[in-house]
Amino acid sequence: MKTLKIVTIGGGSSYTPELVEGFINRYEELPITELWLVDIEEGREKLEIVGNLARRMVEKADLPIDVILSYDRKEALKDADFVTTQMRVGQISARIKDERIPISHGMIGQETNGAGGMFKAFRTIPVILEIVKEIQELCPDAWLINFTNPAGMVTEAVLNYTEFKNVIGLCNVPFDMKQGISKQMNYDADKVRLELSGSNHNVFITDFFYEGNSVINEVVKSYVENSEKTLAMNNFDALSYPPELLKSLNAIPCPYHNYYYFTQEQLEKNLQEYKEGNVRGEVVEQLEKELFEIYKDQSLDIKPAQLEQRGGAHYSDAACSLINSIYNNKQDIQYVNTLNNGAISDLPSDCAVEVACVITKDGPKPISVGSLKPQIKGMIEVIKNFEKLTIEAAITGDRDLAITALSSNPLCPSTYKAVEVVDELLQAHKLYLPQFNQK
Amino acid sequence: MKTLKIVTIGGGSSYTPELVEGFINRYEELPITELWLVDIEEGREKLEIVGNLARRMVEKADLPIDVILSYDRKEALKDADFVTTQMRVGQISARIKDERIPISHGMIGQETNGAGGMFKAFRTIPVILEIVKEIQELCPDAWLINFTNPAGMVTEAVLNYTEFKNVIGLCNVPFDMKQGISKQMNYDADKVRLELSGSNHNVFITDFFYEGNSVINEVVKSYVENSEKTLAMNNFDALSYPPELLKSLNAIPCPYHNYYYFTQEQLEKNLQEYKEGNVRGEVVEQLEKELFEIYKDQSLDIKPAQLEQRGGAHYSDAACSLINSIYNNKQDIQYVNTLNNGAISDLPSDCAVEVACVITKDGPKPISVGSLKPQIKGMIEVIKNFEKLTIEAAITGDRDLAITALSSNPLCPSTYKAVEVVDELLQAHKLYLPQFNQK
Amino acid sequence: MKTLKIVTIGGGSSYTPELVEGFINRYEELPITELWLVDIEEGREKLEIVGNLARRMVEKADLPIDVILSYDRKEALKDADFVTTQMRVGQISARIKDERIPISHGMIGQETNGAGGMFKAFRTIPVILEIVKEIQELCPDAWLINFTNPAGMVTEAVLNYTEFKNVIGLCNVPFDMKQGISKQMNYDADKVRLELSGSNHNVFITDFFYEGNSVINEVVKSYVENSEKTLAMNNFDALSYPPELLKSLNAIPCPYHNYYYFTQEQLEKNLQEYKEGNVRGEVVEQLEKELFEIYKDQSLDIKPAQLEQRGGAHYSDAACSLINSIYNNKQDIQYVNTLNNGAISDLPSDCAVEVACVITKDGPKPISVGSLKPQIKGMIEVIKNFEKLTIEAAITGDRDLAITALSSNPLCPSTYKAVEVVDELLQAHKLYLPQFNQK
Amino acid sequence: MKTLKIVTIGGGSSYTPELVEGFINRYEELPITELWLVDIEEGREKLEIVGNLARRMVEKADLPIDVILSYDRKEALKDADFVTTQMRVGQISARIKDERIPISHGMIGQETNGAGGMFKAFRTIPVILEIVKEIQELCPDAWLINFTNPAGMVTEAVLNYTEFKNVIGLCNVPFDMKQGISKQMNYDADKVRLELSGSNHNVFITDFFYEGNSVINEVVKSYVENSEKTLAMNNFDALSYPPELLKSLNAIPCPYHNYYYFTQEQLEKNLQEYKEGNVRGEVVEQLEKELFEIYKDQSLDIKPAQLEQRGGAHYSDAACSLINSIYNNKQDIQYVNTLNNGAISDLPSDCAVEVACVITKDGPKPISVGSLKPQIKGMIEVIKNFEKLTIEAAITGDRDLAITALSSNPLCPSTYKAVEVVDELLQAHKLYLPQFNQK
Repeated sequence: MKTLKIVTIGGGSSYTPELVEGFINRYEELPITELWLVDIEEGREKLEIVGNLARRMVEKADLPIDVILSYDRKEALKDADFVTTQMRVGQISARIKDERIPISHGMIGQETNGAGGMFKAFRTIPVILEIVKEIQELCPDAWLINFTNPAGMVTEAVLNYTEFKNVIGLCNVPFDMKQGISKQMNYDADKVRLELSGSNHNVFITDFFYEGNSVINEVVKSYVENSEKTLAMNNFDALSYPPELLKSLNAIPCPYHNYYYFTQEQLEKNLQEYKEGNVRGEVVEQLEKELFEIYKDQSLDIKPAQLEQRGGAHYSDAACSLINSIYNNKQDIQYVNTLNNGAISDLPSDCAVEVACVITKDGPKPISVGSLKPQIKGMIEVIKNFEKLTIEAAITGDRDLAITALSSNPLCPSTYKAVEVVDELLQAHKLYLPQFNQK
Repeated sequence: MKTLKIVTIGGGSSYTPELVEGFINRYEELPITELWLVDIEEGREKLEIVGNLARRMVEKADLPIDVILSYDRKEALKDADFVTTQMRVGQISARIKDERIPISHGMIGQETNGAGGMFKAFRTIPVILEIVKEIQELCPDAWLINFTNPAGMVTEAVLNYTEFKNVIGLCNVPFDMKQGISKQMNYDADKVRLELSGSNHNVFITDFFYEGNSVINEVVKSYVENSEKTLAMNNFDALSYPPELLKSLNAIPCPYHNYYYFTQEQLEKNLQEYKEGNVRGEVVEQLEKELFEIYKDQSLDIKPAQLEQRGGAHYSDAACSLINSIYNNKQDIQYVNTLNNGAISDLPSDCAVEVACVITKDGPKPISVGSLKPQIKGMIEVIKNFEKLTIEAAITGDRDLAITALSSNPLCPSTYKAVEVVDELLQAHKLYLPQFNQK
Repeated sequence: MKTLKIVTIGGGSSYTPELVEGFINRYEELPITELWLVDIEEGREKLEIVGNLARRMVEKADLPIDVILSYDRKEALKDADFVTTQMRVGQISARIKDERIPISHGMIGQETNGAGGMFKAFRTIPVILEIVKEIQELCPDAWLINFTNPAGMVTEAVLNYTEFKNVIGLCNVPFDMKQGISKQMNYDADKVRLELSGSNHNVFITDFFYEGNSVINEVVKSYVENSEKTLAMNNFDALSYPPELLKSLNAIPCPYHNYYYFTQEQLEKNLQEYKEGNVRGEVVEQLEKELFEIYKDQSLDIKPAQLEQRGGAHYSDAACSLINSIYNNKQDIQYVNTLNNGAISDLPSDCAVEVACVITKDGPKPISVGSLKPQIKGMIEVIKNFEKLTIEAAITGDRDLAITALSSNPLCPSTYKAVEVVDELLQAHKLYLPQFNQK
Repeated sequence: MKTLKIVTIGGGSSYTPELVEGFINRYEELPITELWLVDIEEGREKLEIVGNLARRMVEKADLPIDVILSYDRKEALKDADFVTTQMRVGQISARIKDERIPISHGMIGQETNGAGGMFKAFRTIPVILEIVKEIQELCPDAWLINFTNPAGMVTEAVLNYTEFKNVIGLCNVPFDMKQGISKQMNYDADKVRLELSGSNHNVFITDFFYEGNSVINEVVKSYVENSEKTLAMNNFDALSYPPELLKSLNAIPCPYHNYYYFTQEQLEKNLQEYKEGNVRGEVVEQLEKELFEIYKDQSLDIKPAQLEQRGGAHYSDAACSLINSIYNNKQDIQYVNTLNNGAISDLPSDCAVEVACVITKDGPKPISVGSLKPQIKGMIEVIKNFEKLTIEAAITGDRDLAITALSSNPLCPSTYKAVEVVDELLQAHKLYLPQFNQK
């Protein structure tokens, strides 16, 4: 009998119930036989709680999916069809340091493409490359769906520093933008297609099609009038874009662009949170504690509603949808991080971009975007370039390069600060950064 | 009530019954209210014959499609939704000259991207630009689906020399290659997707997916063993590719590549045909005469089987399918000539390429191909470049440039011959080439 | 008899004596017959002072150069061989506004590629385009040597928005960097050749050759140890680059990069100057007053030593040297702003770059730089892109675009500030910005 | 005391006296202490003859240059400053096969970028890579000046398949074109500068400067009138270019373009020579015999006049001039084969191109050419691409790729012929092609 084996690394994550729900809902098309939830020993307590909830969910759905908890990655990977990665090297406390240390020097931490994201990349990339090595040995035809942040850099690291090509980076931002704007416009989101331009957390909607017709002008017009409200839908503060900028871009920035277009205001807000002890990582830590209390409830056998409120919701659902389209060669359009291969002419062919792709059994096939217009080109290039330097520093452990990378980031107020922040973060995360501590 | 108006310029073509059949078969999805068949006075007899057959076909199908015959292009274009062009400037006798004159100088005529195709471009491009001007005035939102050869050059001319962007060039070659190879491989052609690389009649299948899996290795292997038989399916002589070439390309050349890979053998064959008075144009002339005899039969009310044998079959069906996908925003994948926009990194962004596209209401969106591998790059570039020169000569009427263009074509044995052939063809087609005869 | 006519627009500038000295020193090779100093009526007093000094200098040198003062640009341009532009639209008081207004909103003014430079471009580009139109009519073979800031943007505007190609942008920064570092390294500056990468005021020395040997490693090493001292040579505050950055760049940033690498510190310093009423423009205003007092002295007949201390010294000497090399087809290497034409692969072919060029009678021929390394690529691209947007806004008078341009500048702390600063500067310079005030 | 050591591999070549004369003439600037002439045992007789002549020449010039004959390449290379390579793997008889075998199949042999050149590349590239390995070990800072044909491909092979970057390919074609046209135009060749576009033996003069002024229009006009006469100056048959082509190119093709623009006529001529037993290789063989008879004359102590008549004259003088400019960091402009590095935007950055370069102690620095105009772009790309495939086949010994490479060459009349020609040449040169005979 044909098997379909999914392995989720970082299975003890609070997002797992969404993933399980996604698989249950798609069972008819995606007949999973084994779902392996893998974690490390330090995560045993969480994995047991989440794993038991997953089993109750499957049982309630009355489906023959075998949920297996494992602390042995290699055992789990053997013959897998899909591997998803959602682990957090250094746990939530590492993220809190990623955010608190930069801000203590007057620099926004930004856990994805700022100083914090840089160190998340430093901790995560070596582990992912290890996992890829194991996949190449144990399940070389599997697809690796990564939604560990920084998802773009992790994808690019695999594409550029290994021979493994079956990797896709996934983010909920495009999904949430599509949903949010559709709601705002009273559109049926299923009839919407986006032209996305950029890379992860550095992406613009540069065209918006409803029932096949370009309505970007209407969307921008509405956004000009409502950007505050629209943005309020996600876990960002609602800063309203000046109409002048939006009209000139004729594109919709992603929520993370707030950091770049409103650096000063974000910095002030982050400083306030820092003083009050509720930077995003600290908020998330508390949210997760509450979620796990809920998950423990033996009578719970569905995804609890509270998970929706956690930033990053829909990540897992996007992953299920992506796996489904690959497995069934659906050739539908999804928004993922993949090899540029010329899709955006201005960016290097070998970098990772986040664009609309046709999803096939052979992976995502990006639709050509062509040249970026100058209104967004500088922003996309400067951050993409920061990522390239960061990935190289993550691989080589080159401290000078790390400082240079950070000083090239638009959020860095001064190269002197870059030195201080890099050094303090290197010290704080020493345990997880062996590449920087050789010799 | 909503109308859907199609205008077919060159409506008196022998291909029209296929087009009409295609529309009839898709009526449920594509509820055409008016089908205008337009031609010039010289084509009145043919248009009457074909138009009457079309009406009998529609009547038999019992559909409320109004078939209107017209000799007034402007009247026809008013408020059209789709315009298809299949006219032949100078009629079949011009094609015969395109083929006979070069071969009389020892040069292959090649009616699409050889000397013959160059002059077909010279005759056709100015007329198409005139039509585009009328479309911009009378039905600016219409889509122009061109299947007049040379379809790639005509498309590129519109893209580069007008402001009109709703143009698509269509050819039956990708369709026929897909069908032919699928048959050879015992594949269901509906489950096949191609990666196409190149431009019209200068295109390679560089990847071949069956049910989403890449099977290009198997296809090339089978082609190595059977290329003679496979090629025999179309209107080209069956020349078997040396296995060494196919293995090294790891791609399938299109039938027109015969001219370039087997120039000497094709030249000999063409010389033979020239002497016997049956160059392709002469054969087609005879075929058409026979077809029109059949069309005249008042009892005929379906597309006659004999049309299948005419080279170029499936052109019209491909057009119907394309129109359907645009109209209904199907987002399926078809193979058309469209703006490169970076899809093939090695070719200019503003040229026309023939690649796999997602077909949407907003037109075709090419899937990125990336860089061409060097095994096929030289061939694609040199012919694409010939086309660019040819288009410029077609617009400017620059005889020196025409000679330079032809001398850059791999089929041209010597620049001296280029001078002779250009001059004799300029003379022969004088009536249709006013741009070369100014002052 | 052969004439050689130079026209200097903005002839009343305090720099003119340096220019005159340069021409006198090179008279043997560059036998100027007429030097026209042109200014506007508002500048009559200054022009008279400077013009008389120029005449005394020429007289003392005993050379047959005719110095002509003119307030009629067209009369002056007739049959010119070289035209230099060093005018300041809006005089020094406009520059003071360019600096004080942004800083009053907490944004660095930066008179070349910050908010101030943007408005200098807005005021200057339309005037330059007018001059170009006159040159095309009155002296179409003349070379236009522009050293009005922002020199890079002005050059790019002429290259992209006119048909006139004989334009070169000139800056003293490369010259001063070469001299400064040579002095630091105890090198004979005449035996030094630079590889420059970037655009005006956004340029790095990416290789440094002494007697033909690459010594960039030694130069960077020395710079690491002495950057404070080296930088102190020019009119920038001495901020010492962190060694980590310099080692990783393996390149020498230009002095203006201080603004980008030390934004926070520069901002604080600029705020201090703002409060004390001595922003750079104000300092320059005072310096110029003193210079003109000196120039008035009828016994002065050489360039006074005090001019050396004025920032921007050597501009005029660089111009003389450039004119000399063009006139005599010297084929030596100089560092100018010219059409990229692929010299830096990562930047658009049609933009202006500042690179090492072979100077010929046919103009500067850039030496290929190839790809930029990622350590400097992001910085160069983001500012180059800001310039492109700025130039387009200067031509079109599009306020939205001006705001978008400024918000893309790394010195802009927030898009909200961009709106405020643009609006206040538009108001302040209203008189000189007719393009923004139409309808 | 400072030494300057030159090593000439293939020292027994008939060209060596020109090289020696060049060194003697430049002794004041280029004070060579040791000139090593290296050859293989099979070449002992020739090396002794040439070596003795060299010694007599040096003695007559009364210079302290030590001429050393050696059969031990490693001994010779130790501490060399410059290495020149002019060896012919397989001797002149191999060249004769390169020419006779293709023509026996109706294909032009063309010893540089046709079938013959392909096999010369196959024999030569592995030997050059071996030499490079030795240089890297024994004299890593030396410059390798290669004038073994195919000089472009050999240079590209070193650049792309080794870490050694100090390689320059040299050809007499640009020098001869410059001289020939200057003579035709009554120009002083020393005041001429060319813009060259292309690669070795596939190069066009796209601009021509006399005393710094562009005179390409005049040159083309004159060439239109005199191309027959001008071309007659070199060892090619005088075929007159049609004026139409030259006017449209507005560029001067190199003599080797005769093969591509006049393929049919060249083929007929080559067939005639083949039948008469005087293909170029056979003519050269006879010429060389005569030269060596002359060289033997013990009273001869200068370069004999007869050497001038040998095609390829000036190669060695160009080499001396290049070495001189590198040694003395002259920064003059010469025309060499070097890394593209973006100089020609349309060609890959990592390929070898033949362009105008500033010659420095750090090697040649190409002057940017920018984009190729379409009139010459196709020709340059298709041959460059053939070269890339050929180099890869030379390294890998992949017969399929060799066939594919040859079938992509415009001189190949049919892929069937490519198979025959490749197989017969592989057999004929078996001894020198170990890479094709593995397993």
